[in-house]
Amino acid sequence: MNPARVRRFLTDLKKGKLTIDETLSKLKLLPFEDIGDAVIDHHRELRRGFPEAILAEGKSVDQIARIAKKMKQRGSNVLITRLSPQNARELKKKLPELDYHRLARIGLILGKRIEKQGKGTILVVCAGTSDLPVAEEAALTAQVLGNEVDRLTDVGVAGVHRLLAQKEKLTQARVLIVVAGMEGALPSVVGGLLARPVIAVPTSVGYGASFQGVAALLSMLNSCVPGVVVVNIDNGYGAGCAASLINKS
Amino acid sequence: MNPARVRRFLTDLKKGKLTIDETLSKLKLLPFEDIGDAVIDHHRELRRGFPEAILAEGKSVDQIARIAKKMKQRGSNVLITRLSPQNARELKKKLPELDYHRLARIGLILGKRIEKQGKGTILVVCAGTSDLPVAEEAALTAQVLGNEVDRLTDVGVAGVHRLLAQKEKLTQARVLIVVAGMEGALPSVVGGLLARPVIAVPTSVGYGASFQGVAALLSMLNSCVPGVVVVNIDNGYGAGCAASLINKS
Amino acid sequence: MNPARVRRFLTDLKKGKLTIDETLSKLKLLPFEDIGDAVIDHHRELRRGFPEAILAEGKSVDQIARIAKKMKQRGSNVLITRLSPQNARELKKKLPELDYHRLARIGLILGKRIEKQGKGTILVVCAGTSDLPVAEEAALTAQVLGNEVDRLTDVGVAGVHRLLAQKEKLTQARVLIVVAGMEGALPSVVGGLLARPVIAVPTSVGYGASFQGVAALLSMLNSCVPGVVVVNIDNGYGAGCAASLINKS
Amino acid sequence: MNPARVRRFLTDLKKGKLTIDETLSKLKLLPFEDIGDAVIDHHRELRRGFPEAILAEGKSVDQIARIAKKMKQRGSNVLITRLSPQNARELKKKLPELDYHRLARIGLILGKRIEKQGKGTILVVCAGTSDLPVAEEAALTAQVLGNEVDRLTDVGVAGVHRLLAQKEKLTQARVLIVVAGMEGALPSVVGGLLARPVIAVPTSVGYGASFQGVAALLSMLNSCVPGVVVVNIDNGYGAGCAASLINKS
Amino acid sequence: MNPARVRRFLTDLKKGKLTIDETLSKLKLLPFEDIGDAVIDHHRELRRGFPEAILAEGKSVDQIARIAKKMKQRGSNVLITRLSPQNARELKKKLPELDYHRLARIGLILGKRIEKQGKGTILVVCAGTSDLPVAEEAALTAQVLGNEVDRLTDVGVAGVHRLLAQKEKLTQARVLIVVAGMEGALPSVVGGLLARPVIAVPTSVGYGASFQGVAALLSMLNSCVPGVVVVNIDNGYGAGCAASLINKS
Amino acid sequence: MNPARVRRFLTDLKKGKLTIDETLSKLKLLPFEDIGDAVIDHHRELRRGFPEAILAEGKSVDQIARIAKKMKQRGSNVLITRLSPQNARELKKKLPELDYHRLARIGLILGKRIEKQGKGTILVVCAGTSDLPVAEEAALTAQVLGNEVDRLTDVGVAGVHRLLAQKEKLTQARVLIVVAGMEGALPSVVGGLLARPVIAVPTSVGYGASFQGVAALLSMLNSCVPGVVVVNIDNGYGAGCAASLINKS
Amino acid sequence: MNPARVRRFLTDLKKGKLTIDETLSKLKLLPFEDIGDAVIDHHRELRRGFPEAILAEGKSVDQIARIAKKMKQRGSNVLITRLSPQNARELKKKLPELDYHRLARIGLILGKRIEKQGKGTILVVCAGTSDLPVAEEAALTAQVLGNEVDRLTDVGVAGVHRLLAQKEKLTQARVLIVVAGMEGALPSVVGGLLARPVIAVPTSVGYGASFQGVAALLSMLNSCVPGVVVVNIDNGYGAGCAASLINKS
Amino acid sequence: MNPARVRRFLTDLKKGKLTIDETLSKLKLLPFEDIGDAVIDHHRELRRGFPEAILAEGKSVDQIARIAKKMKQRGSNVLITRLSPQNARELKKKLPELDYHRLARIGLILGKRIEKQGKGTILVVCAGTSDLPVAEEAALTAQVLGNEVDRLTDVGVAGVHRLLAQKEKLTQARVLIVVAGMEGALPSVVGGLLARPVIAVPTSVGYGASFQGVAALLSMLNSCVPGVVVVNIDNGYGAGCAASLINKS
Repeated sequence: MNPARVRRFLTDLKKGKLTIDETLSKLKLLPFEDIGDAVIDHHRELRRGFPEAILAEGKSVDQIARIAKKMKQRGSNVLITRLSPQNARELKKKLPELDYHRLARIGLILGKRIEKQGKGTILVVCAGTSDLPVAEEAALTAQVLGNEVDRLTDVGVAGVHRLLAQKEKLTQARVLIVVAGMEGALPSVVGGLLARPVIAVPTSVGYGASFQGVAALLSMLNSCVPGVVVVNIDNGYGAGCAASLINKS
Repeated sequence: MNPARVRRFLTDLKKGKLTIDETLSKLKLLPFEDIGDAVIDHHRELRRGFPEAILAEGKSVDQIARIAKKMKQRGSNVLITRLSPQNARELKKKLPELDYHRLARIGLILGKRIEKQGKGTILVVCAGTSDLPVAEEAALTAQVLGNEVDRLTDVGVAGVHRLLAQKEKLTQARVLIVVAGMEGALPSVVGGLLARPVIAVPTSVGYGASFQGVAALLSMLNSCVPGVVVVNIDNGYGAGCAASLINKS
Repeated sequence: MNPARVRRFLTDLKKGKLTIDETLSKLKLLPFEDIGDAVIDHHRELRRGFPEAILAEGKSVDQIARIAKKMKQRGSNVLITRLSPQNARELKKKLPELDYHRLARIGLILGKRIEKQGKGTILVVCAGTSDLPVAEEAALTAQVLGNEVDRLTDVGVAGVHRLLAQKEKLTQARVLIVVAGMEGALPSVVGGLLARPVIAVPTSVGYGASFQGVAALLSMLNSCVPGVVVVNIDNGYGAGCAASLINKS
Repeated sequence: MNPARVRRFLTDLKKGKLTIDETLSKLKLLPFEDIGDAVIDHHRELRRGFPEAILAEGKSVDQIARIAKKMKQRGSNVLITRLSPQNARELKKKLPELDYHRLARIGLILGKRIEKQGKGTILVVCAGTSDLPVAEEAALTAQVLGNEVDRLTDVGVAGVHRLLAQKEKLTQARVLIVVAGMEGALPSVVGGLLARPVIAVPTSVGYGASFQGVAALLSMLNSCVPGVVVVNIDNGYGAGCAASLINKS
Repeated sequence: MNPARVRRFLTDLKKGKLTIDETLSKLKLLPFEDIGDAVIDHHRELRRGFPEAILAEGKSVDQIARIAKKMKQRGSNVLITRLSPQNARELKKKLPELDYHRLARIGLILGKRIEKQGKGTILVVCAGTSDLPVAEEAALTAQVLGNEVDRLTDVGVAGVHRLLAQKEKLTQARVLIVVAGMEGALPSVVGGLLARPVIAVPTSVGYGASFQGVAALLSMLNSCVPGVVVVNIDNGYGAGCAASLINKS
Repeated sequence: MNPARVRRFLTDLKKGKLTIDETLSKLKLLPFEDIGDAVIDHHRELRRGFPEAILAEGKSVDQIARIAKKMKQRGSNVLITRLSPQNARELKKKLPELDYHRLARIGLILGKRIEKQGKGTILVVCAGTSDLPVAEEAALTAQVLGNEVDRLTDVGVAGVHRLLAQKEKLTQARVLIVVAGMEGALPSVVGGLLARPVIAVPTSVGYGASFQGVAALLSMLNSCVPGVVVVNIDNGYGAGCAASLINKS
Repeated sequence: MNPARVRRFLTDLKKGKLTIDETLSKLKLLPFEDIGDAVIDHHRELRRGFPEAILAEGKSVDQIARIAKKMKQRGSNVLITRLSPQNARELKKKLPELDYHRLARIGLILGKRIEKQGKGTILVVCAGTSDLPVAEEAALTAQVLGNEVDRLTDVGVAGVHRLLAQKEKLTQARVLIVVAGMEGALPSVVGGLLARPVIAVPTSVGYGASFQGVAALLSMLNSCVPGVVVVNIDNGYGAGCAASLINKS
Repeated sequence: MNPARVRRFLTDLKKGKLTIDETLSKLKLLPFEDIGDAVIDHHRELRRGFPEAILAEGKSVDQIARIAKKMKQRGSNVLITRLSPQNARELKKKLPELDYHRLARIGLILGKRIEKQGKGTILVVCAGTSDLPVAEEAALTAQVLGNEVDRLTDVGVAGVHRLLAQKEKLTQARVLIVVAGMEGALPSVVGGLLARPVIAVPTSVGYGASFQGVAALLSMLNSCVPGVVVVNIDNGYGAGCAASLINKS
């Protein structure tokens, strides 16, 4: 509650500029005003250098194009996730500057140069070939958000030595994103080796009782390694954002 | 269908010893007879040297005692699983020869000496201290069934080097039982190291989204290591039986 | 921890060849090295005669072809699972030596002759016609891994006598793979008849409350017959691998 | 509405012992009568062929006693299910004529002699000792509802010959209730042998992935034997009612 | 093989028209017959009162045709469920006598006249228009199995009076099949009105939290009306079989 | 029970026009009649001004057309939900007066002018662009049912200030419908600000562990704001009906 | 802080009884007040129309007492839900004016007279005796919030005529709360009879596949009657709040 | 293994206070040490930056004491989570230096002074009074790991202004841990306000369809705010570790 503002209401009431009912209804709205003040300043700060993203899934090409144009006009970089090849082709007709990354299923419109803001390297570790689209979504997101990104691919727990052979890369990262489907054990093994933040990303890779990634998700949430944190199934974009927030802190 | 038997029916019908209705109702029962024949011989072989087990959970002490006595009279070794300390105390009053193993929650009445029948060693690997009761249930079951059993304890994936320091034990086993709760990743890591049958046992150890062992169960069913097989949550007894069947083959 | 190696570090430190900080950072990496050593030897042994498999689902034809070629060049037999007829056709254009088994949905490239290594026969028992693709995936996998394989088809529990009429086949097997969808009762009935390892494979055959194989999976995990072990839904390949590991032990 | 009672009113009216108004006011009370907490549906006996039962679970002893007394006063037989031994003892103080069946957890107050109304025998088949309480609930319910009941106990699918040895009992029943926990396969095996209605009752017996009877329930709903019907987990009472309805049709 | 036919063979044997060997060879096929993929259970009709049906889902048109032809040759009526219009068209080319019922998705080949064997009428009650395919599958199955069948359509609980206006039909049935999706309340309301066996069939009609029929299934399993029995989601065929078994008892 | 009617039966019995058995059988049917009487009047009232809706999903275009024509003939307005663009096109050929709203997926045939009956405004608040189809289904339904409807779009909790900037709209509504997918937090935030009924509608928007709207549904059911009520996932139509009932009360 | 009180302050200010500073310091406490563990939202009553309630479950008696005292001091009525008899006894020692309603498990401290603010009657309809605690929680909550409340008890769908006999009560209500466990069908039947808002409350009454109220919850969410809205399982308090919001609109 | 300690050994070696053999034998014990049930991973502190914790749940007081003593002897700080008051009392008899924090359910034995290593402040935000135990577990863990920790309590989304009034605290944190049960919306609202890493901790607070924290967990995994990461239900310890890893990076 902003005391100055309430004092003004009371003065106006006393002076007869407001009736009791008007004053009462103004008091009812106080939390709205308070929140508004609090948020708006902050929001400006938040938006600095942070491109807004569009989740293409569940939107028509027309809707995507309309939103992207608005963002572009405001000078934002535009990042479109889960963009299918077909939709990318159609979208490109409306937005020729669109840059489509097929493996990551990401469309980019980069008006501003990306400046490196992260303090270290983000390493994206990927269990198997089929997990690559999600890993690439994470890696590309982190890059667009201004981070140095490294990749480590096809190092599942079935052959732990393949992972360990890459100790250089592992120990040099400041933040790790570990992407795995099926039994989702890789983040636990990686997390057990290093004193770095590990963001685990379950993928929907698998069949039967993997339940489209639920097995991997539960595995990661129940990791016996403390400090492993988890994002939604296939949510490479969210992992890239989280890693970026950490890397910039 | 046993042709000789049908021929006998038909002959009896022809001779008037059977009416058409009697013959028809005998033919209706044919599968019963066939199955009976097939099974009974076999069952005798099955029972050889194999003690029957009693699942104590959900049974009264009276029921357990009554079944155990019958089995004893037939000369079987008796193995009682999921026997609580309280019930063990009460049961001992009725069956003084009962030998109770508290950690494994198993009660034993061994009338016959156990003879070693397994061809190699069964190794029971256990992820954490809290998984020990299930691991011991598996190990003791396998021993009572006539197998050499070795144990490897507290070698979870959070510190993979602890596991690998034991490579001697791991490579000497003919069959492995790997017991783990939480994220259940241990059987995948073990299975990736060895060309041996691995029986994974999820335990209900964990909390929250472990769902009493479901996370570990799913993790094991979805292992990226082909050839890992799984038994029910906390089912140390079943794992011991399976390992024994394999070790005797 | 490899003592010789640590001794060398310490000697170097003492001799001034390493600073304290350098020694410390070398010690930090020790577990990595240890694990690497442990695994690599073993892994070589593991790979002997064991073809690597490619799960085609979730991979593009290009990705499959690239991996398969690499494996072929290393002299491995190649086994591609879950390969759809369309993808098989396309793949054959890139890999003419591909041998496609439509029912099992398996593609094979056999550079080396398969030598029989299993000690006995693996019997694949199949509940219904619709379960055949999974059963064939198991059978073919086991064959490629060097095992004698026999088959028993369409012997569901709705007519138990059909199963029992085959007691010869059943009793002659060293390991059994039992494939069933719907209520998944067959492994329990088979397991109750024989003192042999039984690997149960639930299939996604069924509808409604079968939940794409979950009903069968739960049924098998809860089998009242001790010693039945289970693999993931539709995981014929995993069952074939497990049976092979047992049969070669 | 108890038909005998209505007939008596009508006879009394016809004989002049009751006026039309008296008869009407007596009938008025028949369909339901508010007794505070519960409204006993007296009309149900007429409409559904059996008296209302009281589910003791979730009710206080006072509530049970109050409802039971009202039912008794109307001349109904009273059947109380899920009555714990403790509550039975307390209830008996208020209702000394209560007859408690501990295994079935049923309390009975039989004012009227039960007359046999079923056309054949109902056979209750039970997989294991731990399933007995549910099986007895079914059997006793069916008896109280006026049916001839036979029992077959401990004939699980792990030893199919034990079941088949009872072919007389099986083939003589008009309706079968088959009670099983764990993998719930018994109704499928029984149903495959006979041309009789089979009511499957899953029990909560089991552990781990049995999920308190869900595994057995799903198994029964997915039975490969057409014509098997299912009731809720542990719902012996419902199975007894269903069997009785069929047996009286 | 149907009982009438076996009786004819036996009569012929008794009359001397057939020798024992000839009869035996005719009966030889009784228990089952292997036709490649599938083993037909010829004894089933004798044992269970109705012939095996073919579930078309998950089978190729070739497989269906092969099984159907063998059944036809043995003189069985053939009932094919879940047959899509496309597959029906293709199948008709191979089996011109196929009679396809599009709403019920059932294909029929009736070599023998269906004789009425049921003692009363089976009434199929259907909650909504979208539930009709399942209701028709139930109704047609019951008819083919020799029962008089009546239908009551679009009488959901949202307008209870539509149901009650049909009291004649309801009270005249000997067995009721009640089909409903969404909240699945109809069997409870119907079951509360009548003293007849009620078989509840949940359908996958609905969206969101109906979970493809799970909501209706659970609703039916938990019916507050004792004696309602349940089959699998969308399992009209199973309901028809169960109703037939009851109606013939 | 209709007393006059029963009195007539009893009089007829007394006069000898009915036998006791006839009277008894007439009494048996009483509850049906009573219910019928009770409901039918009411139902007439209920239907006044309330158009019947057709759920297009799961119905053929023929079925939809047939039902819509019947309703039109009775003078009802027709509202068809979940109508796909393709089906709308085909339906329009049969019903040229059909008015199709593509975003809401609703088809309308309005024979009667809609008269405003609601007492205030219904505000439909929508979290994101992808939730718009469900929000529009709700808004359009409420309009067709005679309510003033306002809309507030794309005000998700990720930027709470966007919501709060609309305080005018929020405080002027009499009933609010709040539509959100993903984490479904919006109804809690809105409900915490206002003393108005809030109907929460979860949508299936989201991926991975959103489980097609289950995450949002659970979030809404567990709202820490008392008084938030919930409808099924994607059930804009149901929310519109509920809001209308409240707004007309 | 309730609106009447704020209005009094403002009037006093206007009349000169309070200075601006005095008024400001009185209003200062408005938004919320920190009392250690909990922050009481005093502004809520102004904003949401009813005071904060205390959910006793998961709080210590000390915590409850501390929060309740602060609320009392501010002049709020205090409503404590899910208060066990034991905790109520202990709490009464600290707060002697506590009024405990055992069936509803609610504790009340009413400093202010409750004034009727609702425009009509709220009818709480309850399916069975075991659902009464939840129904009473709803009814008492609505009363404390200033509504006329009526009750209708034990009118489950198993005997639909019991419900219909109460048509007076049903049609006189402005808002209905319908409480049911097991199959949860009652709200659908009630909702189909009336053009009034129906708030469905699933209860955890039931066993087996009722899954502690999930079956009833799903049934209600999938009601075929449009306009039925749902609250969480056993959430009588939430239903009472929602009904009150509607009744005051 | 505490890095300072190893450095001391190496310095001693370099200075000649230790021979190579003595240093080697001191290091030999470092990686892990078998103490019967549990193998303590001393190397972890070096590798992961913090000492192993003991999860008290599922362990006996004897087991806890034995492990804690060994850790103490190595000079590690000991952190015991999920320690019940009863067990704490018993444990204190064996380990008098144990410091028990009842709200956080944590036992501490701090041999070494905790040195601040984090670069900024970790803010633990807590939705309601009932979530406090989990929040305190997180806060205390982070403190023991060497971080500055601040707290913000009882700021649930039902009154968003309570949260926003604390914007100072919110914007000053480097890492945020947000703890919430029920609908779990708080992390989304907090995450939308700040450009800082947010670790969401779902709690099991709630009832009915909260499913012991699953609703909150899903809500957090599906947050519409990108960059929110999640740990297991009630896993305050894991959140504290993750926040510490981030704060030290």
